[in-house]
Amino acid sequence: MPDNRLQELRAQVDEINLQLLELLNRRGRVVSEIGKVTQEMGRSFYDPQREAQMLQMLEAANNGPFSNETIKALFREIFRASMALEESQARAKMLVQRKTDDDRTVITLPDGTEIGNGVFTVISGPCAVESYEQLDEVAAALAERGVKVLRGMAYKPRTSPYEFQGLGEPGLKIARQVANKYGMFITSEIMDKSDIPMFMDYVDIFWVGARNMQNGALLKSLGQLNRPVILKRGLAATLEEFLYAAEYIVSSGNPNVMLIERGIRTFEKWTRNTLDIGGVAVLKLETHLPVIVDISHSAGRRDIALPLARVAKASGADGLMVEVHPNPPVAMSDAKQQLTIPEFHALMDEIERVEIRV
Amino acid sequence: MPDNRLQELRAQVDEINLQLLELLNRRGRVVSEIGKVTQEMGRSFYDPQREAQMLQMLEAANNGPFSNETIKALFREIFRASMALEESQARAKMLVQRKTDDDRTVITLPDGTEIGNGVFTVISGPCAVESYEQLDEVAAALAERGVKVLRGMAYKPRTSPYEFQGLGEPGLKIARQVANKYGMFITSEIMDKSDIPMFMDYVDIFWVGARNMQNGALLKSLGQLNRPVILKRGLAATLEEFLYAAEYIVSSGNPNVMLIERGIRTFEKWTRNTLDIGGVAVLKLETHLPVIVDISHSAGRRDIALPLARVAKASGADGLMVEVHPNPPVAMSDAKQQLTIPEFHALMDEIERVEIRV
Amino acid sequence: MPDNRLQELRAQVDEINLQLLELLNRRGRVVSEIGKVTQEMGRSFYDPQREAQMLQMLEAANNGPFSNETIKALFREIFRASMALEESQARAKMLVQRKTDDDRTVITLPDGTEIGNGVFTVISGPCAVESYEQLDEVAAALAERGVKVLRGMAYKPRTSPYEFQGLGEPGLKIARQVANKYGMFITSEIMDKSDIPMFMDYVDIFWVGARNMQNGALLKSLGQLNRPVILKRGLAATLEEFLYAAEYIVSSGNPNVMLIERGIRTFEKWTRNTLDIGGVAVLKLETHLPVIVDISHSAGRRDIALPLARVAKASGADGLMVEVHPNPPVAMSDAKQQLTIPEFHALMDEIERVEIRV
Amino acid sequence: MPDNRLQELRAQVDEINLQLLELLNRRGRVVSEIGKVTQEMGRSFYDPQREAQMLQMLEAANNGPFSNETIKALFREIFRASMALEESQARAKMLVQRKTDDDRTVITLPDGTEIGNGVFTVISGPCAVESYEQLDEVAAALAERGVKVLRGMAYKPRTSPYEFQGLGEPGLKIARQVANKYGMFITSEIMDKSDIPMFMDYVDIFWVGARNMQNGALLKSLGQLNRPVILKRGLAATLEEFLYAAEYIVSSGNPNVMLIERGIRTFEKWTRNTLDIGGVAVLKLETHLPVIVDISHSAGRRDIALPLARVAKASGADGLMVEVHPNPPVAMSDAKQQLTIPEFHALMDEIERVEIRV
Repeated sequence: MPDNRLQELRAQVDEINLQLLELLNRRGRVVSEIGKVTQEMGRSFYDPQREAQMLQMLEAANNGPFSNETIKALFREIFRASMALEESQARAKMLVQRKTDDDRTVITLPDGTEIGNGVFTVISGPCAVESYEQLDEVAAALAERGVKVLRGMAYKPRTSPYEFQGLGEPGLKIARQVANKYGMFITSEIMDKSDIPMFMDYVDIFWVGARNMQNGALLKSLGQLNRPVILKRGLAATLEEFLYAAEYIVSSGNPNVMLIERGIRTFEKWTRNTLDIGGVAVLKLETHLPVIVDISHSAGRRDIALPLARVAKASGADGLMVEVHPNPPVAMSDAKQQLTIPEFHALMDEIERVEIRV
Repeated sequence: MPDNRLQELRAQVDEINLQLLELLNRRGRVVSEIGKVTQEMGRSFYDPQREAQMLQMLEAANNGPFSNETIKALFREIFRASMALEESQARAKMLVQRKTDDDRTVITLPDGTEIGNGVFTVISGPCAVESYEQLDEVAAALAERGVKVLRGMAYKPRTSPYEFQGLGEPGLKIARQVANKYGMFITSEIMDKSDIPMFMDYVDIFWVGARNMQNGALLKSLGQLNRPVILKRGLAATLEEFLYAAEYIVSSGNPNVMLIERGIRTFEKWTRNTLDIGGVAVLKLETHLPVIVDISHSAGRRDIALPLARVAKASGADGLMVEVHPNPPVAMSDAKQQLTIPEFHALMDEIERVEIRV
Repeated sequence: MPDNRLQELRAQVDEINLQLLELLNRRGRVVSEIGKVTQEMGRSFYDPQREAQMLQMLEAANNGPFSNETIKALFREIFRASMALEESQARAKMLVQRKTDDDRTVITLPDGTEIGNGVFTVISGPCAVESYEQLDEVAAALAERGVKVLRGMAYKPRTSPYEFQGLGEPGLKIARQVANKYGMFITSEIMDKSDIPMFMDYVDIFWVGARNMQNGALLKSLGQLNRPVILKRGLAATLEEFLYAAEYIVSSGNPNVMLIERGIRTFEKWTRNTLDIGGVAVLKLETHLPVIVDISHSAGRRDIALPLARVAKASGADGLMVEVHPNPPVAMSDAKQQLTIPEFHALMDEIERVEIRV
Repeated sequence: MPDNRLQELRAQVDEINLQLLELLNRRGRVVSEIGKVTQEMGRSFYDPQREAQMLQMLEAANNGPFSNETIKALFREIFRASMALEESQARAKMLVQRKTDDDRTVITLPDGTEIGNGVFTVISGPCAVESYEQLDEVAAALAERGVKVLRGMAYKPRTSPYEFQGLGEPGLKIARQVANKYGMFITSEIMDKSDIPMFMDYVDIFWVGARNMQNGALLKSLGQLNRPVILKRGLAATLEEFLYAAEYIVSSGNPNVMLIERGIRTFEKWTRNTLDIGGVAVLKLETHLPVIVDISHSAGRRDIALPLARVAKASGADGLMVEVHPNPPVAMSDAKQQLTIPEFHALMDEIERVEIRV
């Protein structure tokens, strides 16, 4: 007879399960409502005091057979699920959040070139503009391989105030001239919103560096422009913070934002940073914005540029960024990671070798 | 008005919680019954097919707002809780968890010296036993200042197989002799459970290093002894993992465990590790086990030993661990961080200077 | 014998070092001369082609054991040193670096109160100004315990653009009024250099947050003021980067900078950040600037405030920063970490309990 | 005339450069010799006291025009280069170090299947053996796609002593039976060297988990066997430590070691760990051992398995490891990251889509 008894007991469990399901979802709806109310009140929906109080109440009411510890553990999971629900609903309201599988932001450059349309884009140029000759030499090589977006960095954020800080406006002038010569577009780092009007004369794509990823004033100002913005992940920014930084720009009115993953700061010393390629995959799930992989700053060494280029292409990212210099050993900055021009050609060949068949 | 609305919604949640509690316990009782029946039938209680079937049923019935994934995750927790209930409800509560404010483990050494009783303990000695003379010179200085627990390290876990690995059993013999001479007790790192019988001849307190914090076989074996164990936090272990590692020992039968915070691995390079002093404060809240601060490995430099000693004492920790060597520059390991004997005396003076008035 | 051999080899190195020194300085003199000549010729001193040519020559002549890469890296440093010599030899020495044991920056507030003079300072106030009543209630309690520097935060950098961003200028007005009422001084976070003129009307001490630690434009602008600046460590900034950020301010003309350690980002989840107390000790060695310990953001939880306050005082820091709110659970931000007013009084009592005897 | 003068001065610089080069290399040779002597003495070649003394001597002897600061900075670079020379020479002596471009360890399984020969290998199976039926179902699917190495995990290292610890020897028996049925080979985690004799009856490839990466006793014992070993990177191990851990095995006599990169612990929360794909590229440069990418533990989520599989293949790694379970939601461990069998087939299809053309 135990088999019958077993069937009977299992039927009871099935019924309890369905009641639990109904109650959990009811709870989810009420907590959602609470989330809305607390948000209106400008408060965080995570409230540890409230959780402690609920747990105390449950402990007082618990008659077993589950121990208080187990009950508290189970309810902590329920709280966590409710929080996750809240958070995912909050994120779902984000403008940068991908809503459907086909949802993608495509950025169109003045000549019609598109970024984010499924074709793998290469963004390149020297770490910094050092002279007309230097940039011209690099740009000629890049143009030969079809690169459209040229780094024209003239304001360099540096750790020390005594390091080379970039050529400033004369550097932007050089960048503009060279870009025009080769039919290319200039991206250049802006470090303060007061420079925007001047930048408008020279720059096609604004670049926000890792140190300024959470410079809210700058992000909001760039959100009021109609030019694309490249936003770099902060050196220890979470992916969530990264998306919210992009949201600062997009929610201010400018939808043309690209994200660059450039490695995060970890304990590992053999690379300058740790390229978060899993983060790239997650970003492609979470947002419709184009995602670019910076293979220069993440590695900090040129000897792994080829495998990282293959990785970037295979990851599903929309492109990669790589620094190229006519003579890296004498570069004013980032000497160890910039590619020579022949190395750049080898990189372009390598990218072409990688094929993801349909 | 939002405050009223919030109160109302929270009351609804409270009521749902109590209904959930009641249902969960009801489920627990039925599942207990099933456990008995299946046991009678000679069948295993764990039945993945049955669980899969229940999850399918819930998925079919789920109308949200929780996603199927979340519902399945919650029920998986409920299944697991039921299993745990069935298997060993008693163990669900961690033994190392502090239950009341006065709850503290006091470890008593053979001569009656106590660790964890509110008096600040200093554990010291060289990084490794190098010779009788070396250990004797250090121990004489330590004994003079009342130190009772002497490092007698003879097995050194090293990054490279080609580095000095310790003197082995002859080192333990030296340690025992020196400890006996000065009425001290030996703590020494054990790296494999097969060494336990031999260690029993020489060692008063077993020491588990950072690299072995999650060596379950070793922890369980030490849990079957009646000698105290010092457990070091792994170099990137969370506090939760640290407490669970201690639980491996305590749940195997040995309650005499001390915890050592020794810094965690971060990106910062000016110290060898980052001393997690906030973690020490949290451990003192969470567990009744004594907590010791290792000021040598956390800093990796001797020039901040005095402030770190003051910090350790002020933190509420039960003691500190510091490495002392007669001649650090020629030490076989950790040359940069070991104190000289005069520096050790200065450290003891400094500790005495710190007073926490009642 | 190896010890003798070692002495002998070291003597050889010493001699080579002195020859290198002599050659390097000789090179410096010749390059100085070249600088003068090229200036006369109206040419830029920086000549990448010339450097490339020198590197090629060295590469050709190099027989090892140093690789060509290493030799080029070393000479790149030598070129850079020569450049630095030419440009501004004076600046090569960091202004924030402590030169002697007694070397300390003391910041004097308008009423003569000093920070950095050896007395332990408490900086406090709510996370953000929410209303006159809220700030007044906190300030009254702080003033009672002698706190002189009041947080008057009206611009809050937030992860999400949809979170509470602070009251803005009206918040600063409130802060000014309240500070005047109690004879206190306002510190307030500035996020963009364009806000400086407005801030000058309300704020006694400028505050640079963690997200702006490397906002060079802001730092340089603050360096041109004659008001003190509190600079917070970035959430994953190294101590070296932290000091260089301070150098941006000081080298622009403002010596009155205080540093705040506020915890760094790590994998540990039981605290919001990991308080780097070893870093505080290192900063006190390396710089003459006052160093303050933020016990609120580092912990992210109020239940370890007392031990962290003791730790801050014992560490040798010049003070601590703690957030206080009349009713933390309803705070607009940082609800989990702000102290209640009674908790603040307990904290002040606790600080007084810690004595470092001389 | 300035042009002549310039030529003259430049010739002087060229000559000084060559003298510097000669001296630097001479210094390199002497320091190499010192490295050998100190190694014989069992001491570290990094000696900060010695460096401090040399800098003092140089400071005393310096007459400018370079400032003491600049001279010290230059010599610190010279010291660093010498250290790097020492370290690279030390590493060059490592058995696991790649000596030439073609240098690769190929591991041959009993049926002649090779790992590390340029063909991309897939290692797979459930997180843990739960029953014969479970493993059989997975193995059937894997065998269909040509997978040869089957996870047969029966000893699970778990954070808590109360979590499922694996089926033990009965699990190994099941694994052996299933592997035999499909002509596959079993890899299984070993946690203590005392289990080796028993494992020899069931297991084809020993597996060392992340928690045991630096369990020296275990590594040395495995080094005395003639079966291959899979070594996982510790959760916060540097690449250098990883290679040295492999060196423990290889230097004990067993050359058949594979490395698995499984993500490192960082602050990022959207993935369980951060896959260090740059580290994979560096490992392929530094060592001849096969390198496998674990796409399950690094991500901790199955929804990015496809992009990570493409990335693994493109990176130049020798294969990937992925967990597969007939019904992940009811898995005893790692429920969130195991693939279903249909997902596994999709993964194999995806891997085939990636082509690196020659």
